[in-house]
Amino acid sequence: MYDVAIIGGGPAGLSAALNCRIRNKSVILFAQDPKTTDLHKAAHMDNYLGFPDTDGATLLDQFCQHLKNYELTIKNEKILEIYQMDDSFALSSKKDAYNSKALILATGLPKFRAIKGEEEFLGKGVGYCATCDGPLFKGKKVAIVSTMDEGEKEANFLAELAEKVYYIPLYKGDLKLAENIDIIRQKPQEVKGNLKAEYLVLEDQELHVDGIFFLRESVQPSQLIAGLEFDKKAIKVDRDMATNIEGVYAAGDCTGKPLQVAKAVGEGQVAGLSAVSFLDGLKQKNK
Amino acid sequence: MYDVAIIGGGPAGLSAALNCRIRNKSVILFAQDPKTTDLHKAAHMDNYLGFPDTDGATLLDQFCQHLKNYELTIKNEKILEIYQMDDSFALSSKKDAYNSKALILATGLPKFRAIKGEEEFLGKGVGYCATCDGPLFKGKKVAIVSTMDEGEKEANFLAELAEKVYYIPLYKGDLKLAENIDIIRQKPQEVKGNLKAEYLVLEDQELHVDGIFFLRESVQPSQLIAGLEFDKKAIKVDRDMATNIEGVYAAGDCTGKPLQVAKAVGEGQVAGLSAVSFLDGLKQKNK
Repeated sequence: MYDVAIIGGGPAGLSAALNCRIRNKSVILFAQDPKTTDLHKAAHMDNYLGFPDTDGATLLDQFCQHLKNYELTIKNEKILEIYQMDDSFALSSKKDAYNSKALILATGLPKFRAIKGEEEFLGKGVGYCATCDGPLFKGKKVAIVSTMDEGEKEANFLAELAEKVYYIPLYKGDLKLAENIDIIRQKPQEVKGNLKAEYLVLEDQELHVDGIFFLRESVQPSQLIAGLEFDKKAIKVDRDMATNIEGVYAAGDCTGKPLQVAKAVGEGQVAGLSAVSFLDGLKQKNK
Repeated sequence: MYDVAIIGGGPAGLSAALNCRIRNKSVILFAQDPKTTDLHKAAHMDNYLGFPDTDGATLLDQFCQHLKNYELTIKNEKILEIYQMDDSFALSSKKDAYNSKALILATGLPKFRAIKGEEEFLGKGVGYCATCDGPLFKGKKVAIVSTMDEGEKEANFLAELAEKVYYIPLYKGDLKLAENIDIIRQKPQEVKGNLKAEYLVLEDQELHVDGIFFLRESVQPSQLIAGLEFDKKAIKVDRDMATNIEGVYAAGDCTGKPLQVAKAVGEGQVAGLSAVSFLDGLKQKNK
Protein backbone atom coordinates (compact mmCIF):
# COMPACT_ATOMS: atom_id res chain seq x y z
CA MET A 1 0.00 0.00 0.00
CA TYR A 2 1.55 3.30 -1.14
CA ASP A 3 0.58 6.68 0.30
CA VAL A 4 0.25 8.26 -3.14
CA ALA A 5 -0.05 6.84 -6.65
CA ILE A 6 0.74 9.28 -9.45
CA ILE A 7 -0.35 8.57 -13.01
CA GLY A 8 1.94 10.37 -15.46
CA GLY A 9 5.65 11.17 -15.60
CA GLY A 10 5.55 14.60 -17.22
CA PRO A 11 6.35 17.87 -15.39
CA ALA A 12 3.14 17.75 -13.32
CA GLY A 13 3.60 14.15 -12.17
CA LEU A 14 7.29 14.66 -11.37
CA SER A 15 6.61 17.86 -9.39
CA ALA A 16 3.84 16.11 -7.45
CA ALA A 17 6.17 13.18 -6.70
CA LEU A 18 8.94 15.53 -5.53
CA ASN A 19 6.65 17.40 -3.15
CA CYS A 20 5.13 14.21 -1.72
CA ARG A 21 8.58 12.67 -1.14
CA ILE A 22 9.89 15.83 0.57
CA ARG A 23 6.99 15.40 3.01
CA ASN A 24 8.06 11.78 3.45
CA LYS A 25 5.06 10.08 1.84
CA SER A 26 5.65 6.84 -0.08
CA VAL A 27 5.10 7.31 -3.81
CA ILE A 28 4.52 5.06 -6.80
CA LEU A 29 4.78 6.86 -10.12
CA PHE A 30 3.48 5.36 -13.36
CA ALA A 31 5.42 6.92 -16.20
CA GLN A 32 6.05 6.08 -19.80
CA ASP A 33 9.58 6.35 -21.21
CA PRO A 34 10.42 10.11 -20.97
CA LYS A 35 11.71 10.00 -24.56
CA THR A 36 8.18 9.35 -25.85
CA THR A 37 6.64 12.42 -24.15
CA ASP A 38 5.59 15.61 -25.91
CA LEU A 39 7.94 17.69 -23.76
CA HIS A 40 10.91 15.63 -24.96
CA LYS A 41 10.15 16.74 -28.51
CA ALA A 42 9.98 20.49 -27.74
CA ALA A 43 12.84 22.02 -29.74
CA HIS A 44 13.16 25.35 -27.94
CA MET A 45 11.81 26.52 -24.59
CA ASP A 46 12.36 29.76 -22.76
CA ASN A 47 9.33 30.17 -20.51
CA TYR A 48 10.13 28.02 -17.45
CA LEU A 49 11.54 30.61 -15.08
CA GLY A 50 15.18 30.00 -14.22
CA PHE A 51 15.95 27.87 -17.28
CA PRO A 52 16.65 30.30 -20.13
CA ASP A 53 17.07 29.14 -23.70
CA THR A 54 16.73 25.37 -23.29
CA ASP A 55 14.87 22.51 -24.98
CA GLY A 56 12.36 19.92 -23.83
CA ALA A 57 14.79 17.00 -23.66
CA THR A 58 17.30 18.92 -21.52
CA LEU A 59 14.59 20.18 -19.18
CA LEU A 60 13.01 16.75 -18.77
CA ASP A 61 16.44 15.30 -18.04
CA GLN A 62 17.02 17.93 -15.32
CA PHE A 63 13.62 17.09 -13.84
CA CYS A 64 14.39 13.36 -13.77
CA GLN A 65 17.84 14.00 -12.28
CA HIS A 66 16.22 16.04 -9.48
CA LEU A 67 13.95 13.10 -8.59
CA LYS A 68 16.95 10.75 -8.40
CA ASN A 69 17.78 12.29 -5.00
CA TYR A 70 14.62 10.69 -3.60
CA GLU A 71 13.53 7.09 -3.19
CA LEU A 72 10.37 6.36 -5.07
CA THR A 73 8.95 3.50 -7.09
CA ILE A 74 8.71 4.25 -10.81
CA LYS A 75 6.89 1.80 -13.05
CA ASN A 76 6.89 2.00 -16.83
CA GLU A 77 3.41 0.48 -16.94
CA LYS A 78 0.16 1.79 -18.30
CA ILE A 79 -2.57 1.91 -15.66
CA LEU A 80 -5.76 0.68 -17.31
CA GLU A 81 -8.34 0.82 -14.56
CA ILE A 82 -8.69 2.34 -11.10
CA TYR A 83 -11.27 1.26 -8.57
CA GLN A 84 -12.25 3.29 -5.56
CA MET A 85 -12.27 1.10 -2.45
CA ASP A 86 -13.47 2.07 1.04
CA ASP A 87 -10.30 3.86 2.13
CA SER A 88 -7.99 3.40 -0.82
CA PHE A 89 -7.63 2.98 -4.57
CA ALA A 90 -6.85 -0.20 -6.51
CA LEU A 91 -4.92 0.35 -9.73
CA SER A 92 -4.39 -2.30 -12.36
CA SER A 93 -1.98 -2.46 -15.25
CA LYS A 94 -1.69 -5.38 -17.64
CA LYS A 95 1.12 -6.76 -15.48
CA ASP A 96 0.12 -6.17 -11.89
CA ALA A 97 -2.19 -4.53 -9.33
CA TYR A 98 -1.29 -1.74 -6.89
CA ASN A 99 -2.89 0.05 -3.96
CA SER A 100 -2.67 3.64 -2.72
CA LYS A 101 -4.41 5.88 -0.21
CA ALA A 102 -4.39 8.97 -2.44
CA LEU A 103 -4.26 9.45 -6.19
CA ILE A 104 -2.85 12.17 -8.43
CA LEU A 105 -3.85 12.23 -12.09
CA ALA A 106 -1.22 13.87 -14.29
CA THR A 107 -2.06 12.08 -17.48
CA GLY A 108 -1.42 14.93 -19.91
CA LEU A 109 -3.61 15.78 -22.82
CA PRO A 110 -5.76 12.93 -24.09
CA LYS A 111 -4.58 12.01 -27.57
CA PHE A 112 -7.87 10.68 -28.89
CA ARG A 113 -11.58 10.96 -28.47
CA ALA A 114 -13.73 8.20 -27.11
CA ILE A 115 -16.41 7.15 -29.58
CA LYS A 116 -20.08 7.71 -28.88
CA GLY A 117 -21.39 5.43 -26.12
CA GLU A 118 -17.91 4.20 -25.14
CA GLU A 119 -17.74 5.96 -21.78
CA GLU A 120 -21.41 5.35 -21.05
CA PHE A 121 -20.89 1.57 -21.23
CA LEU A 122 -17.51 1.50 -19.45
CA GLY A 123 -17.61 -1.51 -17.11
CA LYS A 124 -20.88 -2.60 -18.74
CA GLY A 125 -19.38 -4.52 -21.62
CA VAL A 126 -16.76 -1.94 -22.59
CA GLY A 127 -13.21 -2.40 -21.26
CA TYR A 128 -9.59 -1.47 -21.90
CA CYS A 129 -7.76 -4.66 -20.94
CA ALA A 130 -8.77 -7.83 -22.77
CA THR A 131 -6.36 -10.08 -20.86
CA CYS A 132 -7.71 -8.76 -17.52
CA ASP A 133 -11.41 -9.19 -18.25
CA GLY A 134 -11.15 -11.93 -20.90
CA PRO A 135 -12.25 -14.86 -18.71
CA LEU A 136 -15.64 -13.16 -18.28
CA PHE A 137 -16.25 -13.63 -22.02
CA LYS A 138 -15.79 -17.38 -22.23
CA GLY A 139 -18.11 -18.68 -24.95
CA LYS A 140 -19.23 -15.16 -25.88
CA LYS A 141 -18.76 -12.71 -28.75
CA VAL A 142 -16.15 -10.01 -28.41
CA ALA A 143 -14.87 -7.11 -30.56
CA ILE A 144 -11.38 -5.69 -30.14
CA VAL A 145 -10.58 -2.23 -31.52
CA SER A 146 -6.84 -1.54 -31.44
CA THR A 147 -4.51 1.27 -32.52
CA MET A 148 -1.38 -0.87 -32.08
CA ASP A 149 -0.09 -4.33 -32.98
CA GLU A 150 0.04 -5.25 -29.27
CA GLY A 151 -3.71 -5.75 -29.69
CA GLU A 152 -3.10 -8.86 -31.81
CA LYS A 153 -1.76 -10.76 -28.80
CA GLU A 154 -4.83 -9.90 -26.78
CA ALA A 155 -7.07 -10.98 -29.64
CA ASN A 156 -5.26 -14.33 -29.94
CA PHE A 157 -5.60 -14.83 -26.18
CA LEU A 158 -9.33 -14.11 -26.30
CA ALA A 159 -9.82 -16.31 -29.38
CA GLU A 160 -8.99 -19.33 -27.20
CA LEU A 161 -11.86 -18.54 -24.83
CA ALA A 162 -14.53 -16.64 -26.71
CA GLU A 163 -17.02 -18.04 -29.16
CA LYS A 164 -16.20 -15.30 -31.68
CA VAL A 165 -13.57 -12.56 -31.85
CA TYR A 166 -13.78 -9.60 -34.25
CA TYR A 167 -10.55 -7.64 -34.66
CA ILE A 168 -10.79 -4.02 -35.87
CA PRO A 169 -7.23 -2.72 -36.46
CA LEU A 170 -6.84 1.08 -36.66
CA TYR A 171 -3.30 0.77 -38.03
CA LYS A 172 -1.65 -0.50 -41.18
CA GLY A 173 0.60 -3.51 -41.70
CA ASP A 174 0.42 -7.29 -41.56
CA LEU A 175 -1.54 -8.92 -38.77
CA LYS A 176 -0.50 -12.03 -36.85
CA LEU A 177 -3.87 -13.39 -35.83
CA ALA A 178 -5.35 -16.82 -35.15
CA GLU A 179 -7.40 -18.17 -38.09
CA ASN A 180 -10.76 -18.04 -36.32
CA ILE A 181 -10.58 -14.26 -35.80
CA ASP A 182 -12.59 -12.05 -38.18
CA ILE A 183 -10.69 -8.97 -39.32
CA ILE A 184 -12.77 -5.91 -40.17
CA ARG A 185 -11.00 -2.81 -41.51
CA GLN A 186 -13.60 -0.14 -40.72
CA LYS A 187 -13.70 2.75 -38.28
CA PRO A 188 -15.87 2.21 -35.22
CA GLN A 189 -18.62 4.81 -34.88
CA GLU A 190 -20.63 4.05 -31.74
CA VAL A 191 -21.34 1.62 -28.93
CA LYS A 192 -25.04 0.91 -28.57
CA GLY A 193 -26.99 -1.07 -26.03
CA ASN A 194 -29.57 -0.94 -23.32
CA LEU A 195 -28.36 -1.76 -19.79
CA LYS A 196 -25.10 -3.04 -21.25
CA ALA A 197 -23.19 -2.73 -24.52
CA GLU A 198 -24.75 -4.85 -27.26
CA TYR A 199 -23.64 -3.45 -30.60
CA LEU A 200 -20.47 -1.98 -32.04
CA VAL A 201 -21.52 0.21 -34.95
CA LEU A 202 -18.97 0.30 -37.80
CA GLU A 203 -19.05 2.24 -41.07
CA ASP A 204 -21.47 -0.08 -42.82
CA GLN A 205 -22.34 -2.83 -40.36
CA GLU A 206 -23.27 -3.40 -36.72
CA LEU A 207 -21.57 -6.18 -34.74
CA HIS A 208 -23.78 -7.86 -32.17
CA VAL A 209 -21.36 -8.60 -29.29
CA ASP A 210 -21.19 -9.19 -25.53
CA GLY A 211 -17.97 -7.26 -25.00
CA ILE A 212 -15.92 -4.53 -26.70
CA PHE A 213 -12.30 -3.72 -25.90
CA PHE A 214 -10.58 -0.51 -26.98
CA LEU A 215 -6.79 -0.84 -26.94
CA ARG A 216 -4.99 2.48 -27.40
CA GLU A 217 -1.57 3.87 -26.50
CA SER A 218 -3.05 6.15 -23.85
CA VAL A 219 -6.01 5.89 -21.52
CA GLN A 220 -8.19 8.92 -20.84
CA PRO A 221 -8.81 9.94 -17.22
CA SER A 222 -12.54 9.58 -17.85
CA GLN A 223 -11.90 5.90 -18.60
CA LEU A 224 -9.52 5.35 -15.68
CA ILE A 225 -11.87 6.06 -12.81
CA ALA A 226 -15.65 6.17 -12.74
CA GLY A 227 -17.53 9.29 -11.63
CA LEU A 228 -14.78 11.84 -12.28
CA GLU A 229 -16.24 15.24 -13.17
CA PHE A 230 -15.09 17.21 -16.20
CA ASP A 231 -15.38 20.78 -17.42
CA LYS A 232 -15.51 20.25 -21.19
CA LYS A 233 -12.51 17.96 -21.74
CA ALA A 234 -10.53 19.08 -18.66
CA ILE A 235 -10.69 17.36 -15.29
CA LYS A 236 -12.62 19.69 -12.98
CA VAL A 237 -10.43 20.86 -10.08
CA ASP A 238 -10.63 23.46 -7.36
CA ARG A 239 -7.82 25.80 -6.20
CA ASP A 240 -6.29 22.89 -4.22
CA MET A 241 -6.27 20.74 -7.40
CA ALA A 242 -8.86 18.48 -5.75
CA THR A 243 -11.28 16.68 -8.08
CA ASN A 244 -14.86 15.80 -7.13
CA ILE A 245 -13.67 12.41 -5.76
CA GLU A 246 -12.21 12.51 -2.23
CA GLY A 247 -8.50 11.70 -2.22
CA VAL A 248 -8.13 12.23 -5.98
CA TYR A 249 -6.16 15.25 -7.26
CA ALA A 250 -5.18 16.30 -10.78
CA ALA A 251 -2.45 18.48 -12.28
CA GLY A 252 -0.99 19.57 -15.60
CA ASP A 253 -2.42 19.45 -19.12
CA CYS A 254 -5.28 17.13 -18.06
CA THR A 255 -6.79 20.02 -16.04
CA GLY A 256 -6.94 22.32 -19.09
CA LYS A 257 -5.14 25.23 -20.74
CA PRO A 258 -2.57 26.70 -20.89
CA LEU A 259 -0.58 23.59 -21.81
CA GLN A 260 2.72 24.81 -20.37
CA VAL A 261 5.51 23.43 -18.22
CA ALA A 262 5.49 26.06 -15.44
CA LYS A 263 1.73 25.71 -15.00
CA ALA A 264 2.13 21.91 -14.82
CA VAL A 265 4.99 22.08 -12.30
CA GLY A 266 3.06 24.53 -10.11
CA GLU A 267 -0.12 22.46 -10.22
CA GLY A 268 1.88 19.30 -9.51
CA GLN A 269 3.24 20.96 -6.38
CA VAL A 270 -0.21 22.04 -5.20
CA ALA A 271 -1.72 18.59 -5.95
CA GLY A 272 1.16 16.91 -4.11
CA LEU A 273 0.81 19.11 -1.03
CA SER A 274 -2.98 18.69 -1.04
CA ALA A 275 -2.55 14.90 -1.13
CA VAL A 276 -0.16 15.20 1.83
CA SER A 277 -2.78 17.19 3.79
CA PHE A 278 -5.40 14.60 2.91
CA LEU A 279 -3.14 11.77 4.14
CA ASP A 280 -2.34 13.63 7.37
CA GLY A 281 -6.08 14.08 7.88
CA LEU A 282 -6.61 10.30 7.44
CA LYS A 283 -3.92 9.64 10.06
CA GLN A 284 -5.69 11.94 12.52
CA LYS A 285 -9.02 10.25 11.82
CA ASN A 286 -7.62 6.76 12.50
CA LYS A 287 -6.03 7.71 15.83
CA MET B 1 1.05 53.39 -21.81
CA TYR B 2 2.32 49.88 -21.10
CA ASP B 3 0.47 46.72 -22.13
CA VAL B 4 0.91 45.13 -18.71
CA ALA B 5 1.85 46.49 -15.29
CA ILE B 6 3.01 43.89 -12.78
CA ILE B 7 3.11 44.67 -9.06
CA GLY B 8 5.69 42.47 -7.36
CA GLY B 9 9.11 41.11 -8.26
CA GLY B 10 8.94 37.68 -6.61
CA PRO B 11 8.68 34.38 -8.53
CA ALA B 12 5.05 35.04 -9.59
CA GLY B 13 5.73 38.56 -10.89
CA LEU B 14 8.91 37.51 -12.70
CA SER B 15 7.21 34.49 -14.33
CA ALA B 16 4.30 36.71 -15.44
CA ALA B 17 6.75 39.26 -16.90
CA LEU B 18 8.66 36.53 -18.75
CA ASN B 19 5.53 35.09 -20.33
CA CYS B 20 4.18 38.52 -21.34
CA ARG B 21 7.50 39.53 -22.92
CA ILE B 22 7.77 36.25 -24.86
CA ARG B 23 4.40 37.18 -26.38
CA ASN B 24 5.85 40.60 -27.19
CA LYS B 25 3.74 42.70 -24.81
CA SER B 26 5.34 45.78 -23.21
CA VAL B 27 5.82 45.32 -19.48
CA ILE B 28 6.48 47.55 -16.50
CA LEU B 29 7.39 45.65 -13.35
CA PHE B 30 7.33 47.24 -9.90
CA ALA B 31 9.74 45.32 -7.71
CA GLN B 32 11.49 45.97 -4.45
CA ASP B 33 15.20 45.12 -4.11
CA PRO B 34 15.33 41.29 -4.52
CA LYS B 35 17.58 41.14 -1.45
CA THR B 36 14.74 42.28 0.78
CA THR B 37 12.31 39.53 -0.33
CA ASP B 38 11.33 36.49 1.73
CA LEU B 39 12.61 34.13 -0.96
CA HIS B 40 16.09 35.67 -0.73
CA LYS B 41 16.21 34.62 2.93
CA ALA B 42 15.27 30.95 2.33
CA ALA B 43 18.32 28.95 3.45
CA HIS B 44 17.58 25.66 1.71
CA MET B 45 15.17 24.79 -1.07
CA ASP B 46 14.63 21.55 -2.92
CA ASN B 47 11.06 21.68 -4.21
CA TYR B 48 11.29 23.75 -7.39
CA LEU B 49 11.53 21.02 -10.01
CA GLY B 50 14.83 21.06 -11.90
CA PHE B 51 16.76 22.98 -9.24
CA PRO B 52 17.85 20.40 -6.66
CA ASP B 53 19.45 21.42 -3.39
CA THR B 54 19.61 25.19 -3.78
CA ASP B 55 18.77 28.27 -1.68
CA GLY B 56 16.48 31.24 -2.12
CA ALA B 57 19.17 33.75 -3.04
CA THR B 58 20.62 31.52 -5.79
CA LEU B 59 17.20 30.74 -7.20
CA LEU B 60 16.12 34.39 -7.22
CA ASP B 61 19.39 35.31 -8.94
CA GLN B 62 18.74 32.69 -11.66
CA PHE B 63 15.22 34.07 -12.11
CA CYS B 64 16.52 37.65 -12.47
CA GLN B 65 19.25 36.51 -14.90
CA HIS B 66 16.60 34.82 -17.06
CA LEU B 67 14.65 38.08 -17.30
CA LYS B 68 17.78 39.96 -18.42
CA ASN B 69 17.38 38.39 -21.87
CA TYR B 70 14.23 40.50 -22.34
CA GLU B 71 13.63 44.22 -22.49
CA LEU B 72 11.30 45.38 -19.79
CA THR B 73 11.00 48.39 -17.51
CA ILE B 74 11.72 47.60 -13.88
CA LYS B 75 11.00 50.26 -11.23
CA ASN B 76 12.07 49.95 -7.63
CA GLU B 77 9.04 51.98 -6.55
CA LYS B 78 6.15 51.15 -4.27
CA ILE B 79 2.80 51.54 -6.02
CA LEU B 80 0.45 53.20 -3.55
CA GLU B 81 -2.79 53.53 -5.45
CA ILE B 82 -4.34 52.19 -8.63
CA TYR B 83 -7.35 53.72 -10.35
CA GLN B 84 -9.43 51.92 -12.90
CA MET B 85 -10.01 54.18 -15.92
CA ASP B 86 -12.30 53.47 -18.90
CA ASP B 87 -9.88 51.24 -20.82
CA SER B 88 -6.79 51.25 -18.65
CA PHE B 89 -5.31 51.54 -15.19
CA ALA B 90 -3.52 54.52 -13.61
CA LEU B 91 -0.86 53.59 -11.06
CA SER B 92 0.79 56.07 -8.75
CA SER B 93 3.93 55.76 -6.67
CA LYS B 94 5.33 58.54 -4.53
CA LYS B 95 7.58 59.54 -7.43
CA ASP B 96 5.52 59.19 -10.56
CA ALA B 97 2.37 57.99 -12.32
CA TYR B 98 2.08 55.16 -14.87
CA ASN B 99 -0.54 53.70 -17.19
CA SER B 100 -1.24 50.17 -18.37
CA LYS B 101 -3.96 48.29 -20.22
CA ALA B 102 -3.79 45.16 -18.03
CA LEU B 103 -2.68 44.58 -14.47
CA ILE B 104 -1.12 41.61 -12.68
CA LEU B 105 -1.02 41.63 -8.87
CA ALA B 106 1.84 39.53 -7.49
CA THR B 107 2.23 41.36 -4.23
CA GLY B 108 3.08 38.39 -2.03
CA LEU B 109 1.68 37.83 1.42
CA PRO B 110 0.44 40.95 3.18
CA LYS B 111 2.66 41.57 6.18
CA PHE B 112 0.10 43.37 8.35
CA ARG B 113 -3.59 43.71 8.95
CA ALA B 114 -5.56 46.81 8.20
CA ILE B 115 -7.28 48.20 11.29
CA LYS B 116 -11.06 48.24 11.61
CA GLY B 117 -12.67 50.79 9.29
CA GLU B 118 -9.45 51.48 7.39
CA GLU B 119 -10.48 49.81 4.14
CA GLU B 120 -14.07 51.03 4.43
CA PHE B 121 -12.94 54.68 4.40
CA LEU B 122 -10.18 54.24 1.80
CA GLY B 123 -10.41 57.33 -0.48
CA LYS B 124 -12.92 58.86 1.95
CA GLY B 125 -10.42 60.43 4.30
CA VAL B 126 -8.06 57.45 4.54
CA GLY B 127 -4.98 57.39 2.30
CA TYR B 128 -1.53 55.85 1.91
CA CYS B 129 0.46 58.75 0.46
CA ALA B 130 0.51 62.01 2.45
CA THR B 131 2.63 63.91 -0.06
CA CYS B 132 0.23 62.90 -2.90
CA ASP B 133 -3.01 63.90 -1.21
CA GLY B 134 -1.61 66.49 1.24
CA PRO B 135 -2.77 69.61 -0.58
CA LEU B 136 -6.38 68.53 -0.07
CA PHE B 137 -5.85 68.92 3.68
CA LYS B 138 -4.76 72.57 3.71
CA GLY B 139 -6.03 74.13 6.93
CA LYS B 140 -7.39 70.80 8.18
CA LYS B 141 -6.55 68.20 10.85
CA VAL B 142 -4.60 65.14 9.86
CA ALA B 143 -3.27 62.01 11.60
CA ILE B 144 -0.29 60.05 10.27
CA VAL B 145 0.27 56.46 11.42
CA SER B 146 3.69 55.20 10.34
CA THR B 147 5.74 52.02 10.77
CA MET B 148 8.93 53.65 9.45
CA ASP B 149 10.94 56.86 9.93
CA GLU B 150 10.21 57.85 6.31
CA GLY B 151 6.85 58.93 7.74
CA GLU B 152 8.51 61.83 9.56
CA LYS B 153 9.27 63.59 6.27
CA GLU B 154 5.68 63.28 5.19
CA ALA B 155 4.50 64.62 8.53
CA ASN B 156 6.84 67.62 8.28
CA PHE B 157 5.58 68.31 4.77
CA LEU B 158 1.96 68.18 5.89
CA ALA B 159 2.68 70.32 8.96
CA GLU B 160 3.36 73.25 6.62
CA LEU B 161 -0.12 72.99 5.12
CA ALA B 162 -2.45 71.49 7.67
CA GLU B 163 -3.93 73.19 10.72
CA LYS B 164 -2.91 70.26 12.93
CA VAL B 165 -0.80 67.12 12.43
CA TYR B 166 -0.82 64.17 14.82
CA TYR B 167 2.05 61.70 14.36
CA ILE B 168 1.55 58.14 15.64
CA PRO B 169 4.87 56.27 15.26
CA LEU B 170 4.68 52.44 15.38
CA TYR B 171 8.47 52.15 15.71
CA LYS B 172 11.09 53.04 18.29
CA GLY B 173 13.82 55.66 18.12
CA ASP B 174 14.24 59.42 18.02
CA LEU B 175 11.90 61.42 15.84
CA LYS B 176 12.86 64.39 13.68
CA LEU B 177 9.62 66.29 13.58
CA ALA B 178 8.58 69.94 13.31
CA GLU B 179 7.64 71.49 16.67
CA ASN B 180 3.97 71.96 15.88
CA ILE B 181 3.38 68.20 15.36
CA ASP B 182 1.75 66.29 18.23
CA ILE B 183 3.39 62.91 18.87
CA ILE B 184 1.15 60.18 20.28
CA ARG B 185 2.69 56.81 21.15
CA GLN B 186 -0.42 54.63 21.13
CA LYS B 187 -1.64 51.84 18.85
CA PRO B 188 -4.46 52.84 16.48
CA GLN B 189 -7.59 50.71 16.95
CA GLU B 190 -10.21 51.87 14.48
CA VAL B 191 -11.27 54.44 11.93
CA LYS B 192 -14.77 55.76 12.59
CA GLY B 193 -16.98 58.13 10.64
CA ASN B 194 -20.18 58.49 8.74
CA LEU B 195 -19.87 59.21 5.03
CA LYS B 196 -16.18 59.89 5.51
CA ALA B 197 -13.53 59.18 8.13
CA GLU B 198 -13.92 61.46 11.18
CA TYR B 199 -12.18 59.77 14.10
CA LEU B 200 -9.01 57.78 14.62
CA VAL B 201 -9.57 55.69 17.75
CA LEU B 202 -6.39 55.12 19.79
CA GLU B 203 -5.88 53.11 22.97
CA ASP B 204 -7.33 55.74 25.31
CA GLN B 205 -8.39 58.64 23.13
CA GLU B 206 -10.15 59.48 19.87
CA LEU B 207 -8.64 62.01 17.48
CA HIS B 208 -11.17 64.10 15.57
CA VAL B 209 -9.55 64.55 12.17
CA ASP B 210 -10.30 65.21 8.48
CA GLY B 211 -7.71 62.82 7.10
CA ILE B 212 -5.74 59.76 8.22
CA PHE B 213 -2.65 58.39 6.47
CA PHE B 214 -1.23 54.92 7.08
CA LEU B 215 2.40 54.65 6.01
CA ARG B 216 3.70 51.08 5.99
CA GLU B 217 6.47 49.20 4.22
CA SER B 218 3.98 47.26 2.11
CA VAL B 219 0.58 48.03 0.68
CA GLN B 220 -2.13 45.39 0.68
CA PRO B 221 -3.89 44.56 -2.58
CA SER B 222 -7.20 45.48 -0.92
CA GLN B 223 -5.80 48.99 -0.45
CA LEU B 224 -4.29 49.23 -3.93
CA ILE B 225 -7.45 48.95 -6.00
CA ALA B 226 -11.06 49.42 -5.00
CA GLY B 227 -13.63 46.67 -5.45
CA LEU B 228 -11.25 43.70 -5.57
CA GLU B 229 -12.90 40.52 -4.23
CA PHE B 230 -11.24 38.35 -1.61
CA ASP B 231 -11.74 34.84 -0.28
CA LYS B 232 -10.71 35.28 3.35
CA LYS B 233 -7.35 37.06 2.95
CA ALA B 234 -6.53 35.73 -0.50
CA ILE B 235 -7.39 37.53 -3.74
CA LYS B 236 -10.23 35.59 -5.36
CA VAL B 237 -9.17 34.17 -8.74
CA ASP B 238 -10.54 31.69 -11.25
CA ARG B 239 -8.59 28.98 -13.10
CA ASP B 240 -7.24 31.66 -15.50
CA MET B 241 -5.98 33.69 -12.51
CA ALA B 242 -8.54 36.38 -13.38
CA THR B 243 -9.89 38.47 -10.49
CA ASN B 244 -13.41 39.92 -10.40
CA ILE B 245 -12.15 43.12 -12.12
CA GLU B 246 -11.81 42.90 -15.91
CA GLY B 247 -8.18 43.11 -17.01
CA VAL B 248 -6.83 42.44 -13.49
CA TYR B 249 -5.07 39.12 -12.78
CA ALA B 250 -3.29 37.84 -9.67
CA ALA B 251 -0.62 35.21 -8.96
CA GLY B 252 1.55 33.83 -6.18
CA ASP B 253 1.21 34.09 -2.41
CA CYS B 254 -1.43 36.86 -2.64
CA THR B 255 -3.90 34.29 -4.07
CA GLY B 256 -3.51 31.97 -1.08
CA LYS B 257 -1.79 28.80 0.06
CA PRO B 258 0.46 26.91 -0.49
CA LEU B 259 3.08 29.67 -0.25
CA GLN B 260 5.58 28.00 -2.55
CA VAL B 261 7.84 28.97 -5.45
CA ALA B 262 6.61 26.43 -8.05
CA LYS B 263 2.99 27.38 -7.40
CA ALA B 264 3.90 31.07 -7.77
CA VAL B 265 5.85 30.52 -11.00
CA GLY B 266 3.02 28.44 -12.48
CA GLU B 267 0.36 30.98 -11.52
CA GLY B 268 2.54 33.80 -12.85
CA GLN B 269 2.68 32.04 -16.19
CA VAL B 270 -1.09 31.52 -16.30
CA ALA B 271 -1.77 35.15 -15.23
CA GLY B 272 0.70 36.41 -17.86
CA LEU B 273 -0.86 34.38 -20.66
CA SER B 274 -4.38 35.37 -19.56
CA ALA B 275 -3.36 39.04 -19.67
CA VAL B 276 -1.99 38.46 -23.20
CA SER B 277 -5.34 36.95 -24.29
CA PHE B 278 -7.17 39.89 -22.73
CA LEU B 279 -4.94 42.37 -24.63
CA ASP B 280 -5.40 40.49 -27.92
CA GLY B 281 -9.15 40.65 -27.31
CA LEU B 282 -8.95 44.44 -26.83
CA LYS B 283 -7.05 44.74 -30.11
CA GLN B 284 -9.79 42.79 -31.92
CA LYS B 285 -12.47 44.97 -30.34
CA ASN B 286 -10.78 48.21 -31.43
CA LYS B 287 -10.36 47.11 -35.06
